[in-house]
Amino acid sequence: MDGTMKAIVKHHKGEGAQLQEVPIPNIREDEVLIKVKATSICGTDVHIYNWDEWSASRVQTPYVFGHEFAGEVVKTGEHVTKVEVGNYVSAETHIVCHKCPQCLTGQYHICENTQIIGVDTQGCFAEYVALPESNLWVNPSDMPTDIASVQEPMGNAVHTVLNGEVAGKNVAIIGCGPIGLMAVGVAKAAGASQVVAFDVNPYRLQLAEQMGATTVINSGNEDPVEKAKTLTNGHGVDVVCEMSGHPTAMDQGFKMITNGGRVSILSLPVRPVTLDVTNDIVFKGVQVQGITGRKMFKTWQQVSRLLQSKQVDLTPIITHHLPLEEFENGFSLMNQGHCGKVVLHPNG
Amino acid sequence: MDGTMKAIVKHHKGEGAQLQEVPIPNIREDEVLIKVKATSICGTDVHIYNWDEWSASRVQTPYVFGHEFAGEVVKTGEHVTKVEVGNYVSAETHIVCHKCPQCLTGQYHICENTQIIGVDTQGCFAEYVALPESNLWVNPSDMPTDIASVQEPMGNAVHTVLNGEVAGKNVAIIGCGPIGLMAVGVAKAAGASQVVAFDVNPYRLQLAEQMGATTVINSGNEDPVEKAKTLTNGHGVDVVCEMSGHPTAMDQGFKMITNGGRVSILSLPVRPVTLDVTNDIVFKGVQVQGITGRKMFKTWQQVSRLLQSKQVDLTPIITHHLPLEEFENGFSLMNQGHCGKVVLHPNG
Amino acid sequence: MDGTMKAIVKHHKGEGAQLQEVPIPNIREDEVLIKVKATSICGTDVHIYNWDEWSASRVQTPYVFGHEFAGEVVKTGEHVTKVEVGNYVSAETHIVCHKCPQCLTGQYHICENTQIIGVDTQGCFAEYVALPESNLWVNPSDMPTDIASVQEPMGNAVHTVLNGEVAGKNVAIIGCGPIGLMAVGVAKAAGASQVVAFDVNPYRLQLAEQMGATTVINSGNEDPVEKAKTLTNGHGVDVVCEMSGHPTAMDQGFKMITNGGRVSILSLPVRPVTLDVTNDIVFKGVQVQGITGRKMFKTWQQVSRLLQSKQVDLTPIITHHLPLEEFENGFSLMNQGHCGKVVLHPNG
Amino acid sequence: MDGTMKAIVKHHKGEGAQLQEVPIPNIREDEVLIKVKATSICGTDVHIYNWDEWSASRVQTPYVFGHEFAGEVVKTGEHVTKVEVGNYVSAETHIVCHKCPQCLTGQYHICENTQIIGVDTQGCFAEYVALPESNLWVNPSDMPTDIASVQEPMGNAVHTVLNGEVAGKNVAIIGCGPIGLMAVGVAKAAGASQVVAFDVNPYRLQLAEQMGATTVINSGNEDPVEKAKTLTNGHGVDVVCEMSGHPTAMDQGFKMITNGGRVSILSLPVRPVTLDVTNDIVFKGVQVQGITGRKMFKTWQQVSRLLQSKQVDLTPIITHHLPLEEFENGFSLMNQGHCGKVVLHPNG
Repeated sequence: MDGTMKAIVKHHKGEGAQLQEVPIPNIREDEVLIKVKATSICGTDVHIYNWDEWSASRVQTPYVFGHEFAGEVVKTGEHVTKVEVGNYVSAETHIVCHKCPQCLTGQYHICENTQIIGVDTQGCFAEYVALPESNLWVNPSDMPTDIASVQEPMGNAVHTVLNGEVAGKNVAIIGCGPIGLMAVGVAKAAGASQVVAFDVNPYRLQLAEQMGATTVINSGNEDPVEKAKTLTNGHGVDVVCEMSGHPTAMDQGFKMITNGGRVSILSLPVRPVTLDVTNDIVFKGVQVQGITGRKMFKTWQQVSRLLQSKQVDLTPIITHHLPLEEFENGFSLMNQGHCGKVVLHPNG
Repeated sequence: MDGTMKAIVKHHKGEGAQLQEVPIPNIREDEVLIKVKATSICGTDVHIYNWDEWSASRVQTPYVFGHEFAGEVVKTGEHVTKVEVGNYVSAETHIVCHKCPQCLTGQYHICENTQIIGVDTQGCFAEYVALPESNLWVNPSDMPTDIASVQEPMGNAVHTVLNGEVAGKNVAIIGCGPIGLMAVGVAKAAGASQVVAFDVNPYRLQLAEQMGATTVINSGNEDPVEKAKTLTNGHGVDVVCEMSGHPTAMDQGFKMITNGGRVSILSLPVRPVTLDVTNDIVFKGVQVQGITGRKMFKTWQQVSRLLQSKQVDLTPIITHHLPLEEFENGFSLMNQGHCGKVVLHPNG
Repeated sequence: MDGTMKAIVKHHKGEGAQLQEVPIPNIREDEVLIKVKATSICGTDVHIYNWDEWSASRVQTPYVFGHEFAGEVVKTGEHVTKVEVGNYVSAETHIVCHKCPQCLTGQYHICENTQIIGVDTQGCFAEYVALPESNLWVNPSDMPTDIASVQEPMGNAVHTVLNGEVAGKNVAIIGCGPIGLMAVGVAKAAGASQVVAFDVNPYRLQLAEQMGATTVINSGNEDPVEKAKTLTNGHGVDVVCEMSGHPTAMDQGFKMITNGGRVSILSLPVRPVTLDVTNDIVFKGVQVQGITGRKMFKTWQQVSRLLQSKQVDLTPIITHHLPLEEFENGFSLMNQGHCGKVVLHPNG
Repeated sequence: MDGTMKAIVKHHKGEGAQLQEVPIPNIREDEVLIKVKATSICGTDVHIYNWDEWSASRVQTPYVFGHEFAGEVVKTGEHVTKVEVGNYVSAETHIVCHKCPQCLTGQYHICENTQIIGVDTQGCFAEYVALPESNLWVNPSDMPTDIASVQEPMGNAVHTVLNGEVAGKNVAIIGCGPIGLMAVGVAKAAGASQVVAFDVNPYRLQLAEQMGATTVINSGNEDPVEKAKTLTNGHGVDVVCEMSGHPTAMDQGFKMITNGGRVSILSLPVRPVTLDVTNDIVFKGVQVQGITGRKMFKTWQQVSRLLQSKQVDLTPIITHHLPLEEFENGFSLMNQGHCGKVVLHPNG
């Protein structure tokens, strides 16, 4: 597989990226080469594209970014035993060390030495990507490539929502970006009694309704805490999935949770957050969970099955399909928030 | 509330029962009197009606039987503080001691000294029933009485199905009597990937399909274990809900469960059961759960919310609605298995 | 039981309290009268004695305070069924409503309408106390009254430490007041590999050693986070029990926890706390638990059995035994921190 | 590392084994060669030595058996990355496939395609053993080799006992072979209130006392169920660890368990077992757990830490230390039951 390929290259330490012709990557003994059929844009990619403070502190340029995809194995390293050429795969984004106490006890998703594909290593906004076989997940052959590509962020949603009881519970989803929208669908599929979605973007609240939210609340127009209380006879919601990263919204989550409830935080607020620990956590006996990545690979199994069984249908939120060359349009849509997921197609 | 009322009385130690005019019950200080709007027939009631070995060993005649109902509080004892006249209620069937270690640690459903309403005490196949206030569950005013009456058996289904993870799992329901049928609906609502229903009665398998089973299998015609394996790529199902009470079916459940799976047993086989503990439980690392009653009142909260939110719709399985006077017809239907739930109406 | 009794009365809205002769309390139908054998001083009592901001906002004077005790039932109300005259009892301090969703689902310790004995109602710093029977816990006859009296705070320690896995874990106890000291003993008894105790008070660190701490760290002299990392090969501790209420110490707890660890917070910081949610909770996949009260009565059963079996020996931390009359000496000791638990004896 | 070594060879399909000089094994790329310092005899080895029905159906002769050991890495394959020459190691006995659904979801101990070292592959009753690096566990340098060798069976005990709550619980250990004896120590270390040990062998009951059993019961002389009830005020024990494999003893375990209790079964009864599912599992709401192997490597972490911290001291039950050449004496002791663990030393 010599030769070159098209790839979106983060070419300099500043805004933007370039479509370039670069060498098809070589693979190590424990890696495979994958022909990318679909690759979707994550919020993290937007941070790198825009070159925010976090990107500047972490990312080495030039390199190919991107980490969500579906594709076909076209070559395998000589130590590879679990997949073979022709397999239809997606991949877990965390490359883990397999040596730290967390890895040794099966908690790979919180490995102390995690590297992230497309952030710390070469990514998949390209015709081909080289990845360790231990990161691969084999997809069912009849899963559409666009759906298969967005399993990785759906894994975040599943990991967050299903990290405790859901059936018969009243669930609040705070923040309706793509993962929040997926969380709405997962909560509904898992038997939530009410799924209350909060955001300030009407476009995304309308997508939340399509995903099954029983109530959508524009936090810019209504008091989220008061509304959540009204919907639950004054007792508050049982589960809060915090996906906004806004300190105010996070605090509102702690105010709307019922005694004994669960607050699962997937978002990454950019600054420390001030919480009323005494009244909102201790006296209420609340459980707070930090959620990162996806359980490897329990979460992937859950995602795959929820999609195959049609318990969750992601079609409404995959709003844009573009050829790889039109990536600038994709990032523009993401920056404006006028989209669900944007999927790029590098190979036709 | 002096006077008399119509009631179905188990009048003698033998088959059958009689509609009689009996005194309206008096209430103790901690009891309430309830006007029964709907009362449904349970399999236990059929055992008592038919007067099997178990009934003969436990039940004292004459008495009013029946324990599933919905009705209105019409009178309250002087120590009653939690409900009031006019409340629309159903009731937990287990009267517990509040003194044993299980009660003291909040595990009321496995109280060492449980008495069962309508078995050990006067029941609700009548115009009125007297019950301890601590057994009552207040219903939402817009819940139909027939639905409210069958919350008690639905609680068994919910307690069984939701006693572990369900979303994204492959679930087998063995035995499609009314509770099995409810379990199908609960598993589907809770996000099961596959819900495979087993029975030998085509009428009930067709109801299972209506409740959302993804596959129904007539165990009389097909090999249940082989079929379950085929549906799961040879790995077996993740969860078995055993609701048949047949030793052969129970053994099949242990053969079709995957390594690490959960077998939740609600059924009551009449004789000891022989199990291959080594191969079907130990080597497979299986978890077996005995399920009895309903968690008080966590399960009731789940039931109420799954019904209110329409996550579960029981309409298809409430197949018959009869005036109290036609109870003999109801028991005949139950004995033939040509019904889902049969609901009696004592007050018009 | 007419007549009067000695009691410590919080007589005015200011510092201090008075020993007064007051009427022996009457009991309601669902209450019992208890002759107090031992009653211990809690940190909350010290707040009330000192009359801090919180006390001023909540407590109505004049009244008898105090809520930890052991005593004998000497009279029962007519509705009382679970205890009888002569029973040797202690009591849960939370009087709960039995009507809110938390109570209805067995989570009494986080009742929405909790009243606290000796804070919102008459307490037990007296010869007699009247209490609802539903709050009582019957003690084994051979348990010393001083030990029985301190079961209530030990319940806080047990609820905190045992709210997750402990055996083979490295556990940090931050704050070695009496409950922290008890937590040291509980963690050790439950099989913790290391129990690292943090405080700035050398007297209490020495008590922590007596209770089984494997390392004690004076946070005023050493860097707690660095020390905790060193003791765990750089990985951090598995469990943090936060019992100090100091924002700095709490933050240190979040810095010393390992990925996937548990931070159980029993303390009540007086002001909101600023936490690095992104790095210390989300990326680390940490679980944070608000802990309040004691599970009713699961925690009491655990406490009673850990004490009876001598798995935990509280003798080293019951440092002072005083007649009721010397309460001022007791509060002075507590204010200085030169004590473990101080127990008062109202009846000789 | 050419040349030959001493090894205990199961040389024929019949009773016994032979000390032979055999080639030092070659290693594959993903394997390491280990110089064995201590290797202990398991009950499974005794079955193979005696050549029972199970051995005849599974084991291929001739081969080196044995699977419990501690030793030093002396050579590594070229793909090995996690250990290095000089490391002091023991090993998990299950070689797993890393491809089945159980492996993919981190449940390696119940892999569908497990091979067992020393049963299905060459074992460690020898001067050297070759093993996959993914099975190795690195020991702390100061752990005695005899202790390190018996971590594998201690892992069974830890997996069984700690698979639910223990602190403050009454725990029954049925069967006091070496793993049962270890379970006694683990239960005590984890805060059990009572640890009641059952066996018919007085020698082993005396070892159980040394390991911390609060009561030992000779099931041949006393009624185990009655005794267990008496010790628990008639309520029964909270946890049963079944390690005898005897159908009668297992049934007694189900009779002595309290409502809501946990029965964890590690033993492998040779024939199907008849259980009163209705009365002993369903009505009691009992949880039954099949336990196999050790969680990889969570259980190994727990074992290592419980030993390092001295929470569990196995010294009393390592009763015999023999040179490899005296293996026949070792198997004779095991067959007579007059020993705890027997450790062989192949290298002096």
